[in-house]
Amino acid sequence: MSEVAQNERRILVAIDEGEESMYALSWCLKNLVFENSKDTLILLYVKRPRPIFSSIDGPDFVINADAMAKIDKSSQIVAERVLEAAKRLCNNIQNVEMKIEYGDPRDVICEMIQKLGADILVMGSHGYGVIKRALLGSVSNHCAQNAKCPVLIVKKPK
Amino acid sequence: MSEVAQNERRILVAIDEGEESMYALSWCLKNLVFENSKDTLILLYVKRPRPIFSSIDGPDFVINADAMAKIDKSSQIVAERVLEAAKRLCNNIQNVEMKIEYGDPRDVICEMIQKLGADILVMGSHGYGVIKRALLGSVSNHCAQNAKCPVLIVKKPK
Repeated sequence: MSEVAQNERRILVAIDEGEESMYALSWCLKNLVFENSKDTLILLYVKRPRPIFSSIDGPDFVINADAMAKIDKSSQIVAERVLEAAKRLCNNIQNVEMKIEYGDPRDVICEMIQKLGADILVMGSHGYGVIKRALLGSVSNHCAQNAKCPVLIVKKPK
Repeated sequence: MSEVAQNERRILVAIDEGEESMYALSWCLKNLVFENSKDTLILLYVKRPRPIFSSIDGPDFVINADAMAKIDKSSQIVAERVLEAAKRLCNNIQNVEMKIEYGDPRDVICEMIQKLGADILVMGSHGYGVIKRALLGSVSNHCAQNAKCPVLIVKKPK
């Protein structure tokens, strides 16, 4: 391994609820991250926008501000739990940061690469669900094409 | 770095004539490969099928077997030169293998992952030319979706 590689690198790992992103993180820890280096691992969870219910509001089906707040709180709790679980995998790494962002994961991940100065993006190959992927296209494909840094896509073996 | 990572890994790097694949190799050498490990680097060049000229054969434009043989020989020489240039970048790596295969790069690369037992595929994000990519789709996208191992896609910074 060259000296350059032992310098501080900022490794951005996209984390979601899926097993594949946790597998991607594990693979990265075993194959890319140096335990005693100055590498920083940034765990990024992107909360997707909640569905808009206003068009189906009515006497029998009202989602009011209170219910909206509950949905938001619940998605925040999910995000925090997922990131905590991911962080536990990184117990040998000194520099671990956790980020929760909001929006379309494809755009947010690519934006955060530049904002956080990431040297590499690590992600699972699926992520974000079969139906959503069919509708929106693969998050990993989008990032592989648009990210301004190398992208490591890890598929969980069947 | 964990003990697992220090075991022998088989790192397949897809090489073509483009600068981006050489950059991908350099990035991989700096960030992924251990100089004193048992990692094996496999440099793969895929020769694309030559165009079929038979339909335009005629008195004024004949490509005979002799001309075909010359084209094949020339593409073999290009392949060997490109791989030799790539190998020179790996001067600190003990185990370097070179492979020249023939066919559609998208299929051949995915097949070779399994045939060679690769633990990771490294490739440039473009490769194989703008027009060909527009016609056939991106090689790296195809591999990211179909490869049976993690895929590292490296884009050369502008």
